[in-house]
Amino acid sequence: MLSVEQAIARLLADAPGPPASEPVPLAAARGRVLAVPLVATVDVPPADNSAMDGYALAAADWRGADQPLPLGGRVAAGQVGGDHTPHTVTRIFTGAELPNGADAVAMQENCRVDDDGVRVLKQPVAGDHVRARGQDTARGANVLPAGRRLLAQDIGVAASVGCAALPVRRRLRVAVVANGDELVEPGAEAGPGKIFNSNRYLLGALLGQWGFDVVDMGVAPDRPEVIAERFSHAADQADVVLSCGGVSVGEEDHVKAVLETIGQLSLWRIAMKPGKPLAYGRIGETPFLGLPGNPASALVTAMIIARPFLAACQGALPAETAPLMVDAAFTAPAPDRQCYLRVRHTGRGLEAYTNQSSGILLGASWADGLAIQPPGLAIEPGTPLQFLPWALLA
Amino acid sequence: MLSVEQAIARLLADAPGPPASEPVPLAAARGRVLAVPLVATVDVPPADNSAMDGYALAAADWRGADQPLPLGGRVAAGQVGGDHTPHTVTRIFTGAELPNGADAVAMQENCRVDDDGVRVLKQPVAGDHVRARGQDTARGANVLPAGRRLLAQDIGVAASVGCAALPVRRRLRVAVVANGDELVEPGAEAGPGKIFNSNRYLLGALLGQWGFDVVDMGVAPDRPEVIAERFSHAADQADVVLSCGGVSVGEEDHVKAVLETIGQLSLWRIAMKPGKPLAYGRIGETPFLGLPGNPASALVTAMIIARPFLAACQGALPAETAPLMVDAAFTAPAPDRQCYLRVRHTGRGLEAYTNQSSGILLGASWADGLAIQPPGLAIEPGTPLQFLPWALLA
Repeated sequence: MLSVEQAIARLLADAPGPPASEPVPLAAARGRVLAVPLVATVDVPPADNSAMDGYALAAADWRGADQPLPLGGRVAAGQVGGDHTPHTVTRIFTGAELPNGADAVAMQENCRVDDDGVRVLKQPVAGDHVRARGQDTARGANVLPAGRRLLAQDIGVAASVGCAALPVRRRLRVAVVANGDELVEPGAEAGPGKIFNSNRYLLGALLGQWGFDVVDMGVAPDRPEVIAERFSHAADQADVVLSCGGVSVGEEDHVKAVLETIGQLSLWRIAMKPGKPLAYGRIGETPFLGLPGNPASALVTAMIIARPFLAACQGALPAETAPLMVDAAFTAPAPDRQCYLRVRHTGRGLEAYTNQSSGILLGASWADGLAIQPPGLAIEPGTPLQFLPWALLA
Repeated sequence: MLSVEQAIARLLADAPGPPASEPVPLAAARGRVLAVPLVATVDVPPADNSAMDGYALAAADWRGADQPLPLGGRVAAGQVGGDHTPHTVTRIFTGAELPNGADAVAMQENCRVDDDGVRVLKQPVAGDHVRARGQDTARGANVLPAGRRLLAQDIGVAASVGCAALPVRRRLRVAVVANGDELVEPGAEAGPGKIFNSNRYLLGALLGQWGFDVVDMGVAPDRPEVIAERFSHAADQADVVLSCGGVSVGEEDHVKAVLETIGQLSLWRIAMKPGKPLAYGRIGETPFLGLPGNPASALVTAMIIARPFLAACQGALPAETAPLMVDAAFTAPAPDRQCYLRVRHTGRGLEAYTNQSSGILLGASWADGLAIQPPGLAIEPGTPLQFLPWALLA
């Protein structure tokens, strides 16, 4: 059996190059993957400016709290800073350019305005309440790396250096094929022996959330020739084919046999629970990933195994944040495979859903995320576990 | 000054009722807010079924590992379970309905198939490898609460109980108005005294990420009559008006005066950093929230203050997950206001961006999230801090 890490490493090593780059306006760039590094072509801020409403002056002109300096000018945000008259103060507002010759701002709360001028009550020091040119971003600096999945603040940063559009990777197209004669679509009547198809909607929602274009290929019945036709068609239309169900080696599991006819396939046994069987292969040049059909297995393998692979296919940098550790508030015996438990994060610690069966999806709606139980680790109250809130898997 | 908690509590108490409900198909429901509880009208699974490929039997028929039972039938997933012949085994596959009269499944790995029948090598117990009818969801159970912001797994759960569409709240319409004569749009030329408008794109991206419809009202110059016209127009078109900049009490800050003319307004001083000044009021019936103009202040107040308020206006349940605590790997003196530090989560713990100025947005792109430093708490390496990964604020 492969460990989860080994399985992911194999997939990443086999990921094809990213899709082509295309420009998008800033308002549409959130969640997209930056194709090239963003280099600042301007300083931010573009000039020294005031961090406060107050009075700009040359700090060396200050002669004491009782010595007034006459008002020599006024500059508001959006106006040209102009020249500061020596031995005066210039009225200034937050965000306004510091006039040439001034080097400090006295907050208005620390000034007294009289007929004979403005008294600056605290001795100013050069640089006081001044935002220096380029202090946020210097011209020529790399502000965002290629492969960045753009957050709202990245959009703000791009705007702040004057970019109206960004080059991003075309969205990865991921085809979804559900397998199984037992599947009936929601809204229809589920007769005897049938169950409602949930994986199709679950996977579609996950892929949409991850920023991919979903190519919904519907349900393939358990007939090899139909599965082959469906998979080939999916591979023609998409960058990656994701299938769900039919990946075991049972006589009703046709995915393996079909893939060996129209492409190539390995059946992996991954030391994880839920989720052991996983099929990986190619149809022509198109990667194929076959997830297990049990809903909780489909969810967990999609989040833990498919997600980093698809992100690499999209050209996105891997996340580098450290694991979050939270103490368990429950007991579980040591497993032989790595378990991904559906848990809630409460004031007492992590609490586990009562039924961790791979057939049960409802626990994932009850839970706040997954906790990782490594093989061989028995859990007791107080055992620290790696916690993956759903949001970190989104 | 108000604490952050007090400010949020005041806003929540004043949130108007949620928007109307509308049905959406499952494929479009992720991220939307459920308007009524989802009650299961079917059992999931709808009948007892097999969790394994193997042989179904009545456990009481077993006479020993060396006593073969003849093959009496076959049932695959999607087929009607039918009747099980006593004193035989029925070939069965994962997901297939258990035939009437059988009460256990023997895994095929534990069976030996010979010409004279199938030997079940381990004594079966009733219930072995059987997924009981309704074990995931029982008919009549509340599976999702009203106000739930729908996750991918919730979409899967809704599909599993046969729902093809869900009643959700119409998306909240949030108008964004940026204020300031110094603002130039990205892509244009920023002359002397001007800076690129970043908050408009930052807030637009945040609001989009939170699932709201953004009504972009552009930039209002620093002229009271134009601001008044812009705000009134925004209030007519949107459920909430969000403005950015101009909320101090300086003579160039017109938001307060304008709101007092066309509506009502309180100027709050919140004990948080970045972000102290916040304006809250109404234009007619439409809530108005005025965020500070510094980019890091705008980001933090939007995430910490505006987000829970807007979620309440949308009709969403508040998140109830416990705080994540991570040790600091840096030093910071005790502040008088609650600080929201831009931090990275590394193997050493939380590391803080070197410049925590409210004018600097780049730190938010560098960081993995915010750490909360309560007033009066000096931070040393090892001090546990509440950590808010960006994903939890998305």
